Amino acid sequence: MFILHHGWRSSASRRVRLCLAEKGLKFESVLVDLTKMEQHSPEYLKLNPNGVIPLLILPDGRSLYESGTICEYLDETYPEPPLRPDDAYGRAEMRNWIRYADERIGNLIIFNWKHSIAKVASKWTDAELAEAMKKIPSKERQQAWLRAARQPYTAEEENEARRKLTVMLDKMESNLAQHAWLVGDRYSLADIAVVPFVKRMDEEIIPDEMSAAKHPRVHAWWQKLQARPAFKEARIESFTSTL
Amino acid sequence: MFILHHGWRSSASRRVRLCLAEKGLKFESVLVDLTKMEQHSPEYLKLNPNGVIPLLILPDGRSLYESGTICEYLDETYPEPPLRPDDAYGRAEMRNWIRYADERIGNLIIFNWKHSIAKVASKWTDAELAEAMKKIPSKERQQAWLRAARQPYTAEEENEARRKLTVMLDKMESNLAQHAWLVGDRYSLADIAVVPFVKRMDEEIIPDEMSAAKHPRVHAWWQKLQARPAFKEARIESFTSTL
Repeated sequence: MFILHHGWRSSASRRVRLCLAEKGLKFESVLVDLTKMEQHSPEYLKLNPNGVIPLLILPDGRSLYESGTICEYLDETYPEPPLRPDDAYGRAEMRNWIRYADERIGNLIIFNWKHSIAKVASKWTDAELAEAMKKIPSKERQQAWLRAARQPYTAEEENEARRKLTVMLDKMESNLAQHAWLVGDRYSLADIAVVPFVKRMDEEIIPDEMSAAKHPRVHAWWQKLQARPAFKEARIESFTSTL
Repeated sequence: MFILHHGWRSSASRRVRLCLAEKGLKFESVLVDLTKMEQHSPEYLKLNPNGVIPLLILPDGRSLYESGTICEYLDETYPEPPLRPDDAYGRAEMRNWIRYADERIGNLIIFNWKHSIAKVASKWTDAELAEAMKKIPSKERQQAWLRAARQPYTAEEENEARRKLTVMLDKMESNLAQHAWLVGDRYSLADIAVVPFVKRMDEEIIPDEMSAAKHPRVHAWWQKLQARPAFKEARIESFTSTL
């Protein structure tokens, strides 16, 4: 049995849940509440010294972190149904798509953290904020928490993030003109990598851009993807749901 | 025959050259001069719209970018000698090492660009700088060029970068206590991924930390790595050499 340390709304956790669901792999769910900084608790750091979610504990007790790494491991270890192209060039294209999405996570966080981390962090006293900062190992993450706590993103910053996310849809649209899925004609980890982005663009960030008029192929792809049984099972639900 | 668009001192180019050399794969070399912004020229953007090096043109005319992606493609397509672990878990660890190094490239650029981009960019007029900015697609890269041109990194920033690079050596030392190479007992793409970092730490950034007294296992690993014929062939030379 797998044990997954994750969050329902965490983008990286959503990718891993989708991959597990496609493979039909069950897991014991352990929720890690980022707004309570549980990912920096001594207990969690013992499991994952990097202090990030998701963390997948394998049936043999070893563990893995990083959604891209976890998903590719799962596909290599549980090859049915395959979630990677059969050819090396296709796998290279798939890995570049995952990287492309990873590099744009900052544009998504601006909108996602409003619902979660900002709500909590904005109520911290300066002393509590200073204490929290000490627990965050990377400077980039420290900066993001500081913004969430004290300096909300400006309209200009939000617009720039919306523009970059729209470019992602343009790039998807262009690929989908040639193939049924992002890389070739097989649903793959590349499609899974962008799901947490597209879900949020569709429900809140740039719903207009997700219309059949603006990005018809992305629109059709998104309908097809949401109809997969794994999508429901992975619980990629609304950010305002009670989940 | 492969065609490699690259730079001798570019970290990502160095990784790909090392991988090609280990595989005994020859390539036609096309140098891209970053200080002349040749990576943003219309001719180059036709080959690689992302405007980054290296770019590997395959014998069949298709191309690939991103050093991690290129190296894994090469190992899948030309499996001898193998540069990845045989087991899926080992490959997962290898991919997390590559990602770990990738995420720290900003700490290396601070020291590397002094020798190249800063020398050129600091002489630009404001108009030339504005023109150059327009050609750089990502905000992060724009910021790095702006710093190189107008606002050299402070001693405090350099010290923080040195500290983070030292943590990389600590992490390597800890892994090398258990295995001959970074991941298990086979030289892999994980070792190749850190070579551009270690080379610069050794020659300029934190040479003391590279001593047998401070990081004995990294020291021995580095001697062993430099003795590989591929190292010489890949021309990972001094930043102050005439290359």
